[in-house]
Amino acid sequence: MSSQNITPKVSTTSVLSQIHTVYTPKLVATLNNAIEFRVAKIQGDFVWHSHTTTDEFFLVLNGGPLVMKIRHVFDDPESEETVILKKGELFVVPAGTQHMPGADEIVEVLVVEKCGELNTGDLGVTSVI
Amino acid sequence: MSSQNITPKVSTTSVLSQIHTVYTPKLVATLNNAIEFRVAKIQGDFVWHSHTTTDEFFLVLNGGPLVMKIRHVFDDPESEETVILKKGELFVVPAGTQHMPGADEIVEVLVVEKCGELNTGDLGVTSVI
Repeated sequence: MSSQNITPKVSTTSVLSQIHTVYTPKLVATLNNAIEFRVAKIQGDFVWHSHTTTDEFFLVLNGGPLVMKIRHVFDDPESEETVILKKGELFVVPAGTQHMPGADEIVEVLVVEKCGELNTGDLGVTSVI
Repeated sequence: MSSQNITPKVSTTSVLSQIHTVYTPKLVATLNNAIEFRVAKIQGDFVWHSHTTTDEFFLVLNGGPLVMKIRHVFDDPESEETVILKKGELFVVPAGTQHMPGADEIVEVLVVEKCGELNTGDLGVTSVI
């Protein structure tokens, strides 16, 4: 095992201090070439979307709370539920579950999901959460 | 998608407040039935070990610092390196890399790795980190 295989430590505080736009996650680590860890700033409502092939893990690092809306039945607003996540709280959005992150006050999060997943999931737009 | 599929949020603060023994990680989430998230308290040196089939992710949540010793060459103290991790800092120990977590002051960590991995890795002892 050479030192070339080892990635230096990462300061989430430092990476987050360089993020000036909400919903622009930055990659901070990978696990087993299969799982990606990102940090992001969230404020305001995102868009309803789902990830067909991966669960999505959220941990609130600072600020917030994070307001995670989920729909148990696809596209049925009647089935909506809201999960409020404060600093130190985590939640996993199951694969295939429609969800929309949001926040009144800016919130810094750690997001973990399968490699290469777009932040808009099945909507297929650009950046990644 | 029924609500039965959705696991309630978890407070890492609350889980950690119920941990009274170091090196006894508690499961807080799973991802894709493949990856496990645990929180643990660490103080004092653990044991040298490695995980053959999984990388191991560490994020310092509170306290510390976490002192992660790694050996680039198995059983060769000359190849040792130390990574010091403060609150908000993360590090991934690559699969197959000998490492020994430790801390002078108690440190609370989030640990992420493949499901079912023992905390002593290839040593095959009981609890899990």
